[in-house]
Amino acid sequence: MKCKNAGRGTLFVVTGPSGAGKGTVLGRTLPAIDGIHYSISATTRNPRPGEMDGKSYYFVTHEQFLAMIERGALLEYAEYVGNYYGTPAAAVDAELDAGRDVVLEIEVQGALMVQQKRPEAVLIFIIPPDFSLLEQRLHSRGSEPDDVIARRLEKARSEYQSGNRYDYIVVNGDLDEAVRELTSIIIAQRCRTEKRIDLLR
Amino acid sequence: MKCKNAGRGTLFVVTGPSGAGKGTVLGRTLPAIDGIHYSISATTRNPRPGEMDGKSYYFVTHEQFLAMIERGALLEYAEYVGNYYGTPAAAVDAELDAGRDVVLEIEVQGALMVQQKRPEAVLIFIIPPDFSLLEQRLHSRGSEPDDVIARRLEKARSEYQSGNRYDYIVVNGDLDEAVRELTSIIIAQRCRTEKRIDLLR
Repeated sequence: MKCKNAGRGTLFVVTGPSGAGKGTVLGRTLPAIDGIHYSISATTRNPRPGEMDGKSYYFVTHEQFLAMIERGALLEYAEYVGNYYGTPAAAVDAELDAGRDVVLEIEVQGALMVQQKRPEAVLIFIIPPDFSLLEQRLHSRGSEPDDVIARRLEKARSEYQSGNRYDYIVVNGDLDEAVRELTSIIIAQRCRTEKRIDLLR
Repeated sequence: MKCKNAGRGTLFVVTGPSGAGKGTVLGRTLPAIDGIHYSISATTRNPRPGEMDGKSYYFVTHEQFLAMIERGALLEYAEYVGNYYGTPAAAVDAELDAGRDVVLEIEVQGALMVQQKRPEAVLIFIIPPDFSLLEQRLHSRGSEPDDVIARRLEKARSEYQSGNRYDYIVVNGDLDEAVRELTSIIIAQRCRTEKRIDLLR
């Protein structure tokens, strides 16, 4: 019996291939749920207009980021086009310890890193109902050249192959349905016996 | 990876102490969910006015019931005030094989029997927010003498002690909230990776 979990929040890791609509589904799901915290990443890239430190990202220098890696302060991190992105563990743990759930919205590679460090995390893989839709969605964005899209699809294919490492799969075809699924996963997790065992005493 | 589960329905076992409101919560939850089958028990007791064979119960003779026990045709059974009650396995399996989920609403003792035979079953324990409410609810029914109520409460106490054998605990204080929790557990179960692994191929 995992009594240590009673009272502690759950770490939800939401991931999926580029174009699956992770951000859209989360943006519609989280505001309707109490006691859940969306984790903010640290990054070495420069803020874009309108982005605020501690709101969009924690903006840090390369040196600061490397120091965080060094002292094991990150749950996961990745380099992308010359910049680092990562999840500071301290903020996540403070929320979990206070009994709130935490959501990370991260790349598949990072999600699998978190799973190794925190086997109790709940991993959720968001996908479109059909792989071909991924291609359509990436093309319809119109913002990326064909070879970048081809690379993203190649990456998505390999991400699908890690599929059995996720706890849940949410299908984002109809947005309302995807929101309903993600909401249900979060509510159900809160009903798990190890979270409520104190009620039986 | 439990690929054998893909395509097969889930067996949900809803149980809890007398007075927790299992029937009320289920009655409000199931009509709003597609593809779920409420399992009908077999019993040796006589039909009450208005009860229909194959609808309220399968009404069988003592001989028929004993023969079902003998040939292992029951997922669980119990004797209560001289009559037998039990869950015929065949009907449950036919639904599960057809990809539909099945709900059993049974006593705690039977639920634990089902768990031994079907470790993949999802066990849900419905309780009131507070143990003292159980006592209040049983008294307010006004249909049972104090010593029967005292025995029910004693039984409930021992049922709470098996609490860690359930997968989920649903708290029935506010009925809407309890319905939301039970619905979420069912929806979330359908999103589990082992149920959807085919989507990744």
